[in-house]
Amino acid sequence: MRYQLFYWPGIQGRGEFVRLALEDAGAAYDDVARQDGGMSRMMAMMKGSAGSDADKRPPFAPPFLKSGKLVIAQAANILFYLGPRLKLAPADDNGRLWLNALQLTVTDFVKEVHDTHHPIATGLYYEDQKPQAQEYVGHFLKDRVPKYLGYFEDVLTRSGGAYLLGRKFSYGDLSMFQLVDGLRYAFPKAMKRIERKTPGLVALHDRIAARPTIAAYLGSERRLPFNEDGIFRCYPELDR
Amino acid sequence: MRYQLFYWPGIQGRGEFVRLALEDAGAAYDDVARQDGGMSRMMAMMKGSAGSDADKRPPFAPPFLKSGKLVIAQAANILFYLGPRLKLAPADDNGRLWLNALQLTVTDFVKEVHDTHHPIATGLYYEDQKPQAQEYVGHFLKDRVPKYLGYFEDVLTRSGGAYLLGRKFSYGDLSMFQLVDGLRYAFPKAMKRIERKTPGLVALHDRIAARPTIAAYLGSERRLPFNEDGIFRCYPELDR
Repeated sequence: MRYQLFYWPGIQGRGEFVRLALEDAGAAYDDVARQDGGMSRMMAMMKGSAGSDADKRPPFAPPFLKSGKLVIAQAANILFYLGPRLKLAPADDNGRLWLNALQLTVTDFVKEVHDTHHPIATGLYYEDQKPQAQEYVGHFLKDRVPKYLGYFEDVLTRSGGAYLLGRKFSYGDLSMFQLVDGLRYAFPKAMKRIERKTPGLVALHDRIAARPTIAAYLGSERRLPFNEDGIFRCYPELDR
Repeated sequence: MRYQLFYWPGIQGRGEFVRLALEDAGAAYDDVARQDGGMSRMMAMMKGSAGSDADKRPPFAPPFLKSGKLVIAQAANILFYLGPRLKLAPADDNGRLWLNALQLTVTDFVKEVHDTHHPIATGLYYEDQKPQAQEYVGHFLKDRVPKYLGYFEDVLTRSGGAYLLGRKFSYGDLSMFQLVDGLRYAFPKAMKRIERKTPGLVALHDRIAARPTIAAYLGSERRLPFNEDGIFRCYPELDR
């Protein structure tokens, strides 16, 4: 089974949470929109004009994953599907639901991260909403980042193990890596301060970066660099 | 099996998407935080100090559902769990994943609705971010509502049936009812205009309101009225 991942070609974005899972598991996949003709394939699927059964169920937005004839949209939904197949989720239903609740909390947080540079409208440029972004980010760094990271730190502590689910490594841990990595890129000064209260998450981030699969991925061209078109953007004026 | 739903007692909010499913199915449930002592039970579970196994897996926020010993957080996750049990989801895995993708798109939209009155910070009052809310809502009503509702209208059309999934009624349809109902409450003028382009969704809303289970629920005290503490708020200055 060769998976086909559809996501915007120039950014890590929400697709990165899926890429990390595929990479850690060593799964065979195409990053379709980065291949020749891939963007038009992706757009056709979103428009429901790909000429297949999937046209009846067009995704709202990338990322989406094609697995055989099945098309699955929404990063958390893709990970829910892939989890057991990539051995990155518990086998039991209750464990999968708990992991999904955590991943949906990641999803909520990622949207709040996105809004640090787009508090007023996705359709405007950051440059058109800079004063509002300044206001937003003050509350975000003071309240929201400590709240979300503090929650995940607490989950980690209560798990009694090295991972969010205790001894079982999962795609949720890969998402913790990405959150810490992205926040460090976007808000290096603020994160130095905030990280002091989440030593468990920082250690988890470092352990994941050192996994041979992930280290190889991070050193490859498949890992797109963070940039100012993605979710995590480095605008020094927003970092306090 | 008597379910226990935990959600803020004074608002419909994100809990309403779960309430509608429980009500339509005629499931036995307690709306815990609206009962005597319920709020402190809810807070204890969120703090992981309820004195049970669930303390190892505290929810980030309401709504969450207790089903036996299992505690499930995040509205879309709760609905994913309840769907087959309440016969409000397809039986096959692929259908459930498609429905979940739709519900997660509802989740994304609901967050954008919330931000119409809180574009800068959840921790501030609406009154402290009114000019920014005005700016936000202009783009929201012009671009975002038509985009989301247009997408769901398209899904409905492509399904070839009366419901999002075709002939199969699901919790996704109940969420469509709630979106249309809430948007009409919050933005009555703008919705008159926007609704013209989504006749299928409007008809779906009306069919659902007429279901005996839902009609009985809407006429009961169990259905909290919309108000200015919830997700959908009626501030005339934001409705254009």
